[in-house]
Amino acid sequence: MSGSDAARLSALRRELHRHAEPAFLEFATAWVIERETAHLADVVRRGGDAIDLSRVVDLPSPSVADEWEAAAVAAGYPADRIRWYRQNGTASTVEIVGSRPGPTWGLRSDIDGLPFAESDAAGHVPAAAGFRSQTGAMHACGHDAHTTIGIGLLERLADRDFPGRLRVVFQPAEEGVRGAAAMLDANALEGVDRMISLHVLGEKPTGWFVGSVTGGLATRKFRAEFTGASAHAAVSPEHGRNALLSAAMAATGVMALSRYGSADTRINVGTLHAGDSVNIVPSHATMTYELRATDEGVLDDLDRRAAAVMRGAAAAHGVDVDVLVTGGATVIDPDDRLVAALVEAASAVPAIGPVTATMPQPGSDDVTLMIRAVQAAGGLGAYAAIGVDSPGTHHSPTFDLDERVLVTAVDLFENLVRSGAV
Amino acid sequence: MSGSDAARLSALRRELHRHAEPAFLEFATAWVIERETAHLADVVRRGGDAIDLSRVVDLPSPSVADEWEAAAVAAGYPADRIRWYRQNGTASTVEIVGSRPGPTWGLRSDIDGLPFAESDAAGHVPAAAGFRSQTGAMHACGHDAHTTIGIGLLERLADRDFPGRLRVVFQPAEEGVRGAAAMLDANALEGVDRMISLHVLGEKPTGWFVGSVTGGLATRKFRAEFTGASAHAAVSPEHGRNALLSAAMAATGVMALSRYGSADTRINVGTLHAGDSVNIVPSHATMTYELRATDEGVLDDLDRRAAAVMRGAAAAHGVDVDVLVTGGATVIDPDDRLVAALVEAASAVPAIGPVTATMPQPGSDDVTLMIRAVQAAGGLGAYAAIGVDSPGTHHSPTFDLDERVLVTAVDLFENLVRSGAV
Amino acid sequence: MSGSDAARLSALRRELHRHAEPAFLEFATAWVIERETAHLADVVRRGGDAIDLSRVVDLPSPSVADEWEAAAVAAGYPADRIRWYRQNGTASTVEIVGSRPGPTWGLRSDIDGLPFAESDAAGHVPAAAGFRSQTGAMHACGHDAHTTIGIGLLERLADRDFPGRLRVVFQPAEEGVRGAAAMLDANALEGVDRMISLHVLGEKPTGWFVGSVTGGLATRKFRAEFTGASAHAAVSPEHGRNALLSAAMAATGVMALSRYGSADTRINVGTLHAGDSVNIVPSHATMTYELRATDEGVLDDLDRRAAAVMRGAAAAHGVDVDVLVTGGATVIDPDDRLVAALVEAASAVPAIGPVTATMPQPGSDDVTLMIRAVQAAGGLGAYAAIGVDSPGTHHSPTFDLDERVLVTAVDLFENLVRSGAV
Amino acid sequence: MSGSDAARLSALRRELHRHAEPAFLEFATAWVIERETAHLADVVRRGGDAIDLSRVVDLPSPSVADEWEAAAVAAGYPADRIRWYRQNGTASTVEIVGSRPGPTWGLRSDIDGLPFAESDAAGHVPAAAGFRSQTGAMHACGHDAHTTIGIGLLERLADRDFPGRLRVVFQPAEEGVRGAAAMLDANALEGVDRMISLHVLGEKPTGWFVGSVTGGLATRKFRAEFTGASAHAAVSPEHGRNALLSAAMAATGVMALSRYGSADTRINVGTLHAGDSVNIVPSHATMTYELRATDEGVLDDLDRRAAAVMRGAAAAHGVDVDVLVTGGATVIDPDDRLVAALVEAASAVPAIGPVTATMPQPGSDDVTLMIRAVQAAGGLGAYAAIGVDSPGTHHSPTFDLDERVLVTAVDLFENLVRSGAV
Repeated sequence: MSGSDAARLSALRRELHRHAEPAFLEFATAWVIERETAHLADVVRRGGDAIDLSRVVDLPSPSVADEWEAAAVAAGYPADRIRWYRQNGTASTVEIVGSRPGPTWGLRSDIDGLPFAESDAAGHVPAAAGFRSQTGAMHACGHDAHTTIGIGLLERLADRDFPGRLRVVFQPAEEGVRGAAAMLDANALEGVDRMISLHVLGEKPTGWFVGSVTGGLATRKFRAEFTGASAHAAVSPEHGRNALLSAAMAATGVMALSRYGSADTRINVGTLHAGDSVNIVPSHATMTYELRATDEGVLDDLDRRAAAVMRGAAAAHGVDVDVLVTGGATVIDPDDRLVAALVEAASAVPAIGPVTATMPQPGSDDVTLMIRAVQAAGGLGAYAAIGVDSPGTHHSPTFDLDERVLVTAVDLFENLVRSGAV
Repeated sequence: MSGSDAARLSALRRELHRHAEPAFLEFATAWVIERETAHLADVVRRGGDAIDLSRVVDLPSPSVADEWEAAAVAAGYPADRIRWYRQNGTASTVEIVGSRPGPTWGLRSDIDGLPFAESDAAGHVPAAAGFRSQTGAMHACGHDAHTTIGIGLLERLADRDFPGRLRVVFQPAEEGVRGAAAMLDANALEGVDRMISLHVLGEKPTGWFVGSVTGGLATRKFRAEFTGASAHAAVSPEHGRNALLSAAMAATGVMALSRYGSADTRINVGTLHAGDSVNIVPSHATMTYELRATDEGVLDDLDRRAAAVMRGAAAAHGVDVDVLVTGGATVIDPDDRLVAALVEAASAVPAIGPVTATMPQPGSDDVTLMIRAVQAAGGLGAYAAIGVDSPGTHHSPTFDLDERVLVTAVDLFENLVRSGAV
Repeated sequence: MSGSDAARLSALRRELHRHAEPAFLEFATAWVIERETAHLADVVRRGGDAIDLSRVVDLPSPSVADEWEAAAVAAGYPADRIRWYRQNGTASTVEIVGSRPGPTWGLRSDIDGLPFAESDAAGHVPAAAGFRSQTGAMHACGHDAHTTIGIGLLERLADRDFPGRLRVVFQPAEEGVRGAAAMLDANALEGVDRMISLHVLGEKPTGWFVGSVTGGLATRKFRAEFTGASAHAAVSPEHGRNALLSAAMAATGVMALSRYGSADTRINVGTLHAGDSVNIVPSHATMTYELRATDEGVLDDLDRRAAAVMRGAAAAHGVDVDVLVTGGATVIDPDDRLVAALVEAASAVPAIGPVTATMPQPGSDDVTLMIRAVQAAGGLGAYAAIGVDSPGTHHSPTFDLDERVLVTAVDLFENLVRSGAV
Repeated sequence: MSGSDAARLSALRRELHRHAEPAFLEFATAWVIERETAHLADVVRRGGDAIDLSRVVDLPSPSVADEWEAAAVAAGYPADRIRWYRQNGTASTVEIVGSRPGPTWGLRSDIDGLPFAESDAAGHVPAAAGFRSQTGAMHACGHDAHTTIGIGLLERLADRDFPGRLRVVFQPAEEGVRGAAAMLDANALEGVDRMISLHVLGEKPTGWFVGSVTGGLATRKFRAEFTGASAHAAVSPEHGRNALLSAAMAATGVMALSRYGSADTRINVGTLHAGDSVNIVPSHATMTYELRATDEGVLDDLDRRAAAVMRGAAAAHGVDVDVLVTGGATVIDPDDRLVAALVEAASAVPAIGPVTATMPQPGSDDVTLMIRAVQAAGGLGAYAAIGVDSPGTHHSPTFDLDERVLVTAVDLFENLVRSGAV
């Protein structure tokens, strides 16, 4: 580590922070990653080579994409590359090849921001220091740091003096747990046999470290589209097929499913939008819901039962329904050897401490799908977390982070990759 | 008319009243009809020749039938005939052939009582006069009078001095509107081309008469049986398929159907019974509902929509459902010629007055199915009503009727049939 | 009537058509009315003197009003008057005093357009003839004609050679049945004792006329706002108070209310919007519903029962609910004398025929509230309708009308008012 | 232990088994307990001194009690004592006082059977050996053994050679978890400072032993009575207040409550019965439901939320509702010292093994309320379980138990009480 590292990484993180972009709209962010790593990379995948968007639902509409493309260009980023990322996808993987044989490390860095405006309070450091987001979106979950750490690690290991390979996986759309599956669909994780990720935790003090989170709730997010037929509510209501009524029955019906004795589960209907006018029998409704379970098999079962509720409630009123999966993540069962190696690497970094081996997963992250895929192929996986003092909670407009984490995390991963320990 | 007619018909009505029997259990009643008419009849259909019970649902259980059979025998009716009617059905038609050509008249007389106990208040005439029902059921809708009038008319016309034929149709199970369809299934109305019926009306004064009721609400009654799977509610609720929940959704769902701009309709869920124990996911539920409409086509449409709700709500929770039609009646559009003939026949009876041609149908009666069938075959139909002062309302334990109606009604129908008017 | 009348009224109607404005945003329309009638009027009420907006819910938001103000100014209307109508309300009444004693006539002219874009098909006359709406809203219900007829009648009677007085009531927000009650709240109808209105009917041929519509369904429109508490759907769903669930139960519950034997009714839940995010227990929901009945007392009862459903469903999940009335109209029972006078006046217009006295009301219009208020004060009321050949149905983007109706209607009302008949 | 003990206890258990009686109807069972222990007891509470029935809901009806009283007398038990237990309650406590100071032990023995018929299959030992239940009820959960063990222990310790006191608490109505609270209401546990219970476990082999079950789900059972108003479904449905609809909404509403992040919970609606007739708006409905949680505070919160659903759903349709608690049990957190003493006592019994300290509670038992009450007063509690090979599962018609457990359990408790260990 060096002071110049700290200054440079801080500047890079602040650039990303100032131009936060939401899921699948990370046009400038993807370009910054390219700009910073192109000279370093031995193997690169970008756009359609890194992500398969064909099965992603709810991609931003063209008009929304227009806005974010314009904003990126207006902020001074090159129009042709912005356009390229818009057309091809904002994911990339950047791989460097070590000087001797060894495992292929995958480090996931998620790159998207959240779709709300950052605080402009005087006491909010990014506002005071001039790097408050200018886009209307905000890095309120630390992905600006995650992206910066990925880039920093590639720079640090540019000497290739390590065994194996390092592939940094720059993933869009972690919010909504939508990007990881699409990168897996494009085989972007192919060949990785040590899959890791790191998340900053604002509620833990700077220095705090855990080798991996464990368990958690596997989750899947859905959107159900109900399509019936409209009719004048006074003249001929009998000609209507009431999509609002189907959706209301579906909402109560899915919430009313008996829960499980064999697993901890969650069901939530998050949004419901139906109808056009007070005097029309509503012909369409859109509902989003999510399911969670401590067991993937239970989640599959719950998924089937919930879909049956959607279909039954639709059929009850002569309405059609389409149920789409819009996102998902799974539980995590990290590998002890990899956790031990992370703990050892962390313990060697003076800025880190206390160090814990594992703790229960506090939320959902679709890097769990990447970890499971690598484990399924015989590799190892773990998902570390590190404290960063913050005045605001994650996903709030006053979230911030202690930038010392940037160099600390690079130090940690440098230790891990150079060690050849696992 | 004669004084002896009045005494005899009163005695007969009181015998029937004292041994009132509910739907499909009219064992003694059917025997009394046979006893009183066998010597008069030219053509007779009884039991399976008069009614097809194969599609009737909710027939009384064997143990209930045991009770009513025993009660009829205990009351002194012949055990072999009681058994015969139990085994073959309680419907009959009794036809006499007039001395000259003419139409075949059908007169429906319904024979069943209601399943509740009669008042034993001192002021209640049947109690005071010693003919209060001894069975626990009660003729609280005047079917004892209807049956007596049918028998009385056969006696009156025993001289065969009339054109055509007269068939009195003794129908079980008018309550619940269940018997008429089953008699039609057995072709018991075949050949009838003037279909009439008469109902006593306790809320109108003695003498009041209307040639036919009109319109009304076509109705259909249903029973939905939901079958799921039980499960322990704490250990493994996820193994259950919750029939109670399906039925609850179906009940609210069917009530919530948009009503019609093109017809007046009614929807009612009347009963719901589900589950065995508080700690078991309920595996079965039984729901009864009824639909009504001023238009038969609308009723068919509503029937389809309601059945879709049942199936959808069942499917929503992985439950099976069977929907059975348990009864029905339709609207009535009487023929003007027949109404006119009834009005003329009534006007010639001194005890009748005032006389009205038509009035809206106040309730549901499945003789409407018989009338419609006769009309569909090119015949005529009407459904007359006649006042009988009563202290209690229909279907109440204090209902009673002015017995003068017995002879009055026989006089009326005698005039009609002998006249050869239509 | 004269050819110059026809040309001038057509030009005025086309100006209004080209700048159609939706409910409560009729800034330019109100100005045009002022511009055309100021020199004619003996008594004028404008803005807050003509309408009390304090109890109107769902007024357009300031940002929407900004847009329509800007559009009116951009179209060349005077900025100060546009601003004035925006600030004070777009209603007005213009009254002229006849030369001799007589009744005070009230003629309601509704002035608002509908919030959708007009057809630009080549075959659509307004598009071909260059007066297609430029605003994004559209006069697809003929209110441009109604406004023009009101102005034309004032011009025609400018000689004051008639008994009594004529007050033309220029009402905003007939669509949504929201403006009439607010004008009544401001006493804008005070003193009127002959209340009339005229509606063009695209589905009837030019010349067809009815003296008054009758009956119809009284209606009331509602918005229910459910406010609960949000919570993370996985971490602590139990801290949420689920407004979506309350609204879903309320929607099914209100639709499931038993309908009436004593009146024809309608219930519709038209829209439902709830929740923010798939992983949050929803804290708010907004539902709109409407009730209708052929009887005002039944409507009041249904209103109470529906409100009970809203409150019960809210309370079931610890949620608060506010129920607001957003609009209403009532049934109409026109006065025979006034209908006869209208029929007589119409019969004297060569361009009118055939002429009918009355027909059932086909929809809802809140002028019915004005008519009822005048009747309640001892005056007379009627609501006439006149045919105008149209290629498209009312409320469709291809609605148009035969402009001959403008002069024809002025002729008709001139006859009526000058006649002194009632 | 002695062979004669085994024979005598087996005979006693078989007598109880042959005359199994359901909850609150244990008339003969209570008498047998009196008959067998009256000569031993130093302190006795019976009937109203041992149980307060005033707050118990759903006590058997008089006609049902008549039947069970008659059956007990017909089986040869003394009519006066059977009548006494019927009138005063079937609970009792029998206490003996040891020869030296020490703690007061409470041993709960539950005495009720289950309301279904026992298997009469040839291979079912009680049937083959002639002690199959003659009553229509069945000891299918081993309470006959529990009662016998309680009596056997009193006999064994009749020498009073132990420190402290032993109170055997003979509790009715453990099934439905209804009797324990009523005994606590009568202060029947007053002064107990070592509360224990033992349950036989058919799914564990004879000899298997656990010192205490732990945790489990606290549970509460409810009955909600909905009372509305009936109305004719065709003539005037608007006069009804639909209790079925309220109950259906309540059933789905309570099942749809968001579950807890802070505890494991269960919700079940077990039964629903509503309405009288298909053509009547239903005026009454009865629903039973149960709630469970791993945390008593969460159960209280869930109780409040469920009651709000009942009240809200009732109010939504103008219906009244009463919610009654019909039973309950809580979680168990046994005291280590007492568990250790049980383990030590068990380890000294040759017939016992393997021995485990604790295991999770597999079901619900209201002795947990007694244990909690004793702990709250500063005492200790534990709930042991012991294996008894059985061919059938608990609560099945083929349940049976290895009678060696009778003497084994008495040996165990003798060791415990005599030891003075805790």
